[in-house]
Amino acid sequence: MPRVNRIRRVFNSLRKYKRHFGPVAYAQIVRVPAEKLPGELSLIERIRRRASTEGRAELRLGIGDDCALLRLRAGEELAVTTDMSIAGRHFLVGRHPAEAVGHRALARGLSDLAAMGARPVAAFLSIALPRELVGSRSAHGRKGPSGGLRRPWIDLFLDGFLALANATGTPLAGGDLAESPQFAADVVLIGAVRRGCALLRSGARPGQLLYVTGSLGGAAAGLRRLLKRKGAASDPRLKAHLWPAPRLAQGQWLARRGRAAAAIDISDGLSTDLAHLCQEAGVSAELEAQSIPVAPGATLNDALHGGEDYELLFTAPAAVSLPRAIAGIPVTRIGRITPRRAGSPRITLVAGNGKTALEPAGWEHFA
Amino acid sequence: MPRVNRIRRVFNSLRKYKRHFGPVAYAQIVRVPAEKLPGELSLIERIRRRASTEGRAELRLGIGDDCALLRLRAGEELAVTTDMSIAGRHFLVGRHPAEAVGHRALARGLSDLAAMGARPVAAFLSIALPRELVGSRSAHGRKGPSGGLRRPWIDLFLDGFLALANATGTPLAGGDLAESPQFAADVVLIGAVRRGCALLRSGARPGQLLYVTGSLGGAAAGLRRLLKRKGAASDPRLKAHLWPAPRLAQGQWLARRGRAAAAIDISDGLSTDLAHLCQEAGVSAELEAQSIPVAPGATLNDALHGGEDYELLFTAPAAVSLPRAIAGIPVTRIGRITPRRAGSPRITLVAGNGKTALEPAGWEHFA
Repeated sequence: MPRVNRIRRVFNSLRKYKRHFGPVAYAQIVRVPAEKLPGELSLIERIRRRASTEGRAELRLGIGDDCALLRLRAGEELAVTTDMSIAGRHFLVGRHPAEAVGHRALARGLSDLAAMGARPVAAFLSIALPRELVGSRSAHGRKGPSGGLRRPWIDLFLDGFLALANATGTPLAGGDLAESPQFAADVVLIGAVRRGCALLRSGARPGQLLYVTGSLGGAAAGLRRLLKRKGAASDPRLKAHLWPAPRLAQGQWLARRGRAAAAIDISDGLSTDLAHLCQEAGVSAELEAQSIPVAPGATLNDALHGGEDYELLFTAPAAVSLPRAIAGIPVTRIGRITPRRAGSPRITLVAGNGKTALEPAGWEHFA
Repeated sequence: MPRVNRIRRVFNSLRKYKRHFGPVAYAQIVRVPAEKLPGELSLIERIRRRASTEGRAELRLGIGDDCALLRLRAGEELAVTTDMSIAGRHFLVGRHPAEAVGHRALARGLSDLAAMGARPVAAFLSIALPRELVGSRSAHGRKGPSGGLRRPWIDLFLDGFLALANATGTPLAGGDLAESPQFAADVVLIGAVRRGCALLRSGARPGQLLYVTGSLGGAAAGLRRLLKRKGAASDPRLKAHLWPAPRLAQGQWLARRGRAAAAIDISDGLSTDLAHLCQEAGVSAELEAQSIPVAPGATLNDALHGGEDYELLFTAPAAVSLPRAIAGIPVTRIGRITPRRAGSPRITLVAGNGKTALEPAGWEHFA
């Protein structure tokens, strides 16, 4: 079986790069027609080469062994979060630029680290994907600016993922790769935070004030435009949806200085995530409608219920003074924590002189 | 919209269990017909309730916040590994018992930790799955011994996963959950190992002896039986395939005592994994055919090329004395490391007086 032997040789010469990109199970390899092999196998190598981890003392061992090895600094504890991104569920292959899909897959996990006040130490990326997204003849790829070879979808996905990884100092330390009819990426983030300093959801107490970073509703408004096919990927009005910026510097600032009592990131919408924060601590909250920083182009409804803004929602005792901005991002007081009373609404929206109950109404993606 | 509001209430009351089981994206929930809801949502709660982490001082914060928080002991470093298990690729839904699928999904990662000499600290489980595997009317579920309610496939999967997690002291600390047409599980293992003591692939040197734990080929022989529909799930001849035992105690013993120079777990077959070990260190190896511990019911070919045995393959200097068994599992010397010579085979198989080149030929699953 000369073809199989050739495949085996190519395969095995690449297996030293296995950990963590493999295992591409042997079963998957030997079924691949020989003419498609180079593109297939080079995906593993392309990832390995691009996942440069030079100068990262904490990452003692990256791709290439049974496990990655990491060292934290003394006095730190580990924060771990995992998030899946599934085609048709979290994004639409034909509508979302592949780079933005990669960016958002990583941004979700980084935002979870930010909400704990942790700094990123390493990312792991497991991808199940159909063949059509891999090869140079892949559907949904894109020609380069020179009009030359079509770049496969998965390479564009990696462009977006690795650009954000580099910008945030998050080495890609491993992962797994397998073929599947449905694209699914699982992103694992390992972070570090000084022991006892992590920002928890459960720290909210009556009397504390409620703050939010940046502005809200921009992601919902952007997705609405995207689904109506308005605006190119570079349109600034799509930026909040396609290229969310996890608030790492802000979360770390708050944790380091002990200024926040509780924190959560706004991934499901202010009304929903504030309800989580209140439920964890057994408290209620009052929101001031006129204080909420509504993003340009968004409505108050987008700001209240739109998800995926990835801003930080946090509480602080009234005696704590907070700056108007942290690391260049505005901080706005939007309400306060109140005692929980049976029969009273969890969240009250104060608008003018009126008060209404605000039902959590997280926002629906592709309805 | 009373139905949607009811759904929202149920959903939001459960969102406090979100981290890390959710996000079940809101989009997924509001599309679910109301009569199917309880089963859907209770999956999140079922997992949370079963993921008991009591008495685990290292797991400071499990499911219920933006991240899980872990503390290692002083002087330890972190080992991280991720492995995907995909339906039709790593197992067959109709053929593999769901409990065994869960067991094997976790065993793969634990075996990676074992190969580094690390002890497990926490597991994270991300699952993308089709609706038909979830509800009480789920296809592929199974009636209880009392003939009562059918238990959904995913609950049986969790039975197997959590039984091994409990047996190995590995708390389930989080994960993610999403609907997808294709079942895919991504298992992340966090382990800890004393700094500088991890067993690496790259430590093999000429003159060292080559050892293996347990016996080889049993998983390949077992899968052959399973695919021929011979034997029930409890058949001991299927055990090596369906219920592999990661060699955690053996790996930790070797790392703690500094007895091994290099190690890898046998997931792709002895010929393939030995080639990895040799490639990482730029050496060659000689295997003695008559020394290889072939599992009952398996052939020498199964032992050489069968994958998924999850035994440890390791090297030690000839001067190091090793016991015949570590923690009850036999240790067998099967060959030695030799210098790499250009034009010579990477691996030589010595049988009687003859020597032949052994080509790595990892074993094909469902061909």
